[in-house]
Amino acid sequence: MKLSKKNLGDRLNHVYDVIIVGGGAGGLSAAIYLQRYRLSCLVVEKGRGRSFWMQDLRNYLGLPPDTPGRDLLQQGQDHALSLGADHLRGYVESVEDEGDTFAVKVKVGKADSVYPVFRSRYVIAASGIIDHLPHLENMQNVYDYAGYNLHVCMICDGYEMADKRCGLFVNSEGNINTAFVLNWFTPYITVFTQGLFEVSAEMRKKLRDHGYPLVELPIKRFLGHDHEMTGVELIDGSMVPLETGLVAMGSHYFNEYLQGLDLEWKGDNLVTDGMCRTSHPRIFALGDLKEGINQVAIAVADGALAATAIWREIRRASPPRRWEAHLDKSHSDSDSDILPPESFPQPIEAAS
Amino acid sequence: MKLSKKNLGDRLNHVYDVIIVGGGAGGLSAAIYLQRYRLSCLVVEKGRGRSFWMQDLRNYLGLPPDTPGRDLLQQGQDHALSLGADHLRGYVESVEDEGDTFAVKVKVGKADSVYPVFRSRYVIAASGIIDHLPHLENMQNVYDYAGYNLHVCMICDGYEMADKRCGLFVNSEGNINTAFVLNWFTPYITVFTQGLFEVSAEMRKKLRDHGYPLVELPIKRFLGHDHEMTGVELIDGSMVPLETGLVAMGSHYFNEYLQGLDLEWKGDNLVTDGMCRTSHPRIFALGDLKEGINQVAIAVADGALAATAIWREIRRASPPRRWEAHLDKSHSDSDSDILPPESFPQPIEAAS
Repeated sequence: MKLSKKNLGDRLNHVYDVIIVGGGAGGLSAAIYLQRYRLSCLVVEKGRGRSFWMQDLRNYLGLPPDTPGRDLLQQGQDHALSLGADHLRGYVESVEDEGDTFAVKVKVGKADSVYPVFRSRYVIAASGIIDHLPHLENMQNVYDYAGYNLHVCMICDGYEMADKRCGLFVNSEGNINTAFVLNWFTPYITVFTQGLFEVSAEMRKKLRDHGYPLVELPIKRFLGHDHEMTGVELIDGSMVPLETGLVAMGSHYFNEYLQGLDLEWKGDNLVTDGMCRTSHPRIFALGDLKEGINQVAIAVADGALAATAIWREIRRASPPRRWEAHLDKSHSDSDSDILPPESFPQPIEAAS
Repeated sequence: MKLSKKNLGDRLNHVYDVIIVGGGAGGLSAAIYLQRYRLSCLVVEKGRGRSFWMQDLRNYLGLPPDTPGRDLLQQGQDHALSLGADHLRGYVESVEDEGDTFAVKVKVGKADSVYPVFRSRYVIAASGIIDHLPHLENMQNVYDYAGYNLHVCMICDGYEMADKRCGLFVNSEGNINTAFVLNWFTPYITVFTQGLFEVSAEMRKKLRDHGYPLVELPIKRFLGHDHEMTGVELIDGSMVPLETGLVAMGSHYFNEYLQGLDLEWKGDNLVTDGMCRTSHPRIFALGDLKEGINQVAIAVADGALAATAIWREIRRASPPRRWEAHLDKSHSDSDSDILPPESFPQPIEAAS
């Protein structure tokens, strides 16, 4: 059920099988699988993650390519709730390993916050990333275009940029190299450093050899209308016309709550096995937090894998369920062509 | 575009980047990704695969849980076609490795068949499996319930069987062991061997210890109405009431066309790396054909992974695209607050 400040007290003495940090594509897929495995889970969702901002989810099988990311999330949340998952809007502050359980401290509410602690046997880290965007005085001007034709993911949206005049917005020399992959889709690339760092002579030459203009003046604002970015105005008032853009400025990883735990990392990504298990046997990591490509389809599969691994482990540690007479359920089916329950066949051995 | 006997001649001199064998969840996801990577692909689909038979796709994020598998497939086919993929209804008879290309021979049409040969640089094997079903004289009686409440996948539908009287239909002693996983969901299990094999004394004891009846008489027919199976009638006329069923009789793997190639197998599954590449560097395998759990979500992610690996390889082997003046496209944007193309900024180095 949906938890809030009002009713979360009911769950403070409960030990969930799994607490899922993050209600994006990976976390919701895990919740659906876990509940269908008859395990209990709580999804803690801070809101406004990466998929929330996607205006069109163009490469996910089964949904029309103009489906907004938030529709996927809403459908997934309804789906998980319908299966009995708990869902709480809140921000996970810390996860403490207590041995058999984890203590997960959540901040709920921006004003008059409360800080409940929930417990679970497993934790799934599905809190994802958020892309750094150009930092302008008026950030609303950036939000007007980000996720529309100012893209943040080349795998998702390279196709939309094909053969268009494209601004590439970077914050480090390393990220300039994105241009030499992006040129698969379009060669009409202008690189914007926003004056954030020095570009090496070697990189300047490489860009010149490719014919890609390098603009180092800071950006004043994006130009455009109705969420369609048509160019950039620089601080000296000059303007650069564009038809699309790609922001390649790295990402913030929502993993602060994991820092107290002894986990194996590769850069900002958690190292996981083929079932999304981290180096801690009861912590799993999905989607963008782990190594690999950052795609909705991958996160959804990761949710299925982690849930399956957890189910297998819990199931194998549980006693087998026998069909015992005193447990037999009442059988209300009165269809005339099947036998009544009292004549249900005995095991052949017992009868013979 | 949709290919048929009438228009497939247009494609016989074309070398596709990828031919995808199988238009299920994995193959269609791969096609969507490949086309968005600006690669060319042909999907060859024999029709009526495993997901086509699913009446409800209950665990795939983003779709309501009552979505039939065929809706997913139709949406995916439309999606791939809208991106320029080719799609042909046909049966792949053989794949021959010609060195730089593969020759893929397809049987098209059940009557007056033609046997075109298409060529590609890569092959994605996404032809999947189909579950063996109990073989009755009247197979329509089986089809009336299979995919409804006579299930074939415990991961997908264990939840639907929870605490119900469940028939487990097996064709080998090994498959009887499914009962000791299925009992996570329900202990009210009756095992039906259909008289197909001898059950060992050890297994009989194990079933007896669990209280699971063993029925060895062959089945005459399933009982029920409106796709709801309510029991089984045996050949001696006796009847066993049931509320649901699970068929665990193994699967047929659609991999005949791969047998001439030197690939690494593990049982019937193809061995693949983390990007779904088989032991042949230009053959990938997705979904149920490869090792792992057989789930739509996994196949969809596999399609994304294989397409990405192929794109990376083709891209890295391609010359870089430079922004050269003579290639510059006409720029029709007349928005007054952006510069005309002739004053498009030059690379800083060139200007300074």
